[in-house]
Amino acid sequence: MIESNDAGLTCDAFLGGHVQAWQPRVGYRAATDPVFLAASVPARAGQSVLELGCGVGVASLCLAARVPGLALDGVELQGAYAALARRNATTNRVALTVTEADLRDLPCDLRNRSFDHVIANPPYYAANGPAAQDAGRDRALREDTPLAEWLDVGLRRVRDGGYLTIIHLTERLPDILAGIAGRASAVVLPLAARAGHPARRAIVQARKGARSPFMLLPPLVIHQGDHHPGDGEYFTDAVRAIMRDLGALDLTAMARG
Amino acid sequence: MIESNDAGLTCDAFLGGHVQAWQPRVGYRAATDPVFLAASVPARAGQSVLELGCGVGVASLCLAARVPGLALDGVELQGAYAALARRNATTNRVALTVTEADLRDLPCDLRNRSFDHVIANPPYYAANGPAAQDAGRDRALREDTPLAEWLDVGLRRVRDGGYLTIIHLTERLPDILAGIAGRASAVVLPLAARAGHPARRAIVQARKGARSPFMLLPPLVIHQGDHHPGDGEYFTDAVRAIMRDLGALDLTAMARG
Repeated sequence: MIESNDAGLTCDAFLGGHVQAWQPRVGYRAATDPVFLAASVPARAGQSVLELGCGVGVASLCLAARVPGLALDGVELQGAYAALARRNATTNRVALTVTEADLRDLPCDLRNRSFDHVIANPPYYAANGPAAQDAGRDRALREDTPLAEWLDVGLRRVRDGGYLTIIHLTERLPDILAGIAGRASAVVLPLAARAGHPARRAIVQARKGARSPFMLLPPLVIHQGDHHPGDGEYFTDAVRAIMRDLGALDLTAMARG
Repeated sequence: MIESNDAGLTCDAFLGGHVQAWQPRVGYRAATDPVFLAASVPARAGQSVLELGCGVGVASLCLAARVPGLALDGVELQGAYAALARRNATTNRVALTVTEADLRDLPCDLRNRSFDHVIANPPYYAANGPAAQDAGRDRALREDTPLAEWLDVGLRRVRDGGYLTIIHLTERLPDILAGIAGRASAVVLPLAARAGHPARRAIVQARKGARSPFMLLPPLVIHQGDHHPGDGEYFTDAVRAIMRDLGALDLTAMARG
């Protein structure tokens, strides 16, 4: 983390320095979620990507760092985060167009387009939970917009055969699967802090219009070591390949076993 | 497997010989599913258990072998299997009452009761799939009764705070979670043939009326060895404890990590 001249901002490195992102020192701060989300998107050069609730843009920027030649759009409700996402796109020389909008009320331009990929890291906490101290952080973390609407808007904006990829709490899997039922196939990759621990987060990848059976993948284990929390935070090889070497999380290959 | 004098039957040992069950040589034959199902039921002595679609009774008999003092009821649609379940209850000296009935049309006696536990290993294959050669096997494997009805009847017959425990294909998890949504909490234990392989089967344990968050446990790995199918069928220690030593699968303890 580099302290900035800009009051209240830090510039943080992601993907071993391949991505630099300005974000508020206090407020919602990107951590590993957008990195795992970006690693799991099966995008190819020339494709279009829409990120719902892009914040300062870390997921889109990480995806662009791994897959060159994407056309990226981000939608962000909070103006200050949207402005930082634009700045970060420039800093990282990424073609990310950021629109300040409520995903429930997208401008016509976006509503008239369909995308090869839609990605999102929706807020984790229910609308009636305790508030975060910082208003921006609170809004980024709190589910003002119901999760079902994120899924609905995402599936509307992705083309037939395209992918909606989201990262969320594992405990919301029933709601996520209900939200896409009948509209898309689903593959789930649980993310476990350590081997043998329940996975707190999961990536859900939905392919619009596909009828493949639901697939639950083996958990991706993030940290080496056993069950003792004092063992340090060394990443597993698979995660280090993502974090440091721009590696992909290929859910389709994982599904083949 | 012991070939029997009874034409077309075999007597098979489960749980290292703690359970002996007569079953058709040709037809639906119990394998590991009822063993894992029985191991995962958090029943205590004195409680009541209803098994929907009990077949020849292996799951109930395995549960009775691990937890003495249960009052067990089984419902089975096919008369020949119900008769074998009664015979197996006698052979194993287990208090299992078997009713030949369609679970969608239970007799009043059962409809008027609620149970501490309901367990089921519903058919795995959709009603429109290819037929098995043997009619009894076909009926046991094919989903004539929609899965949603198994879940509905199970949740109706279990008391508030009691548990519905089922084993099924992982690919049906979205349907299972939809079937219990709003009526029960759910814990899912995926069963993977080998470490790193997608789990083909899963145990779902629903607690009626509970509001705990959905919990996805780390997979239970069944066989030792790596990804090569030629490596033999040695069980992992956790599975051997279940198969040979009447061990339990304590999903609540697993959820604590």
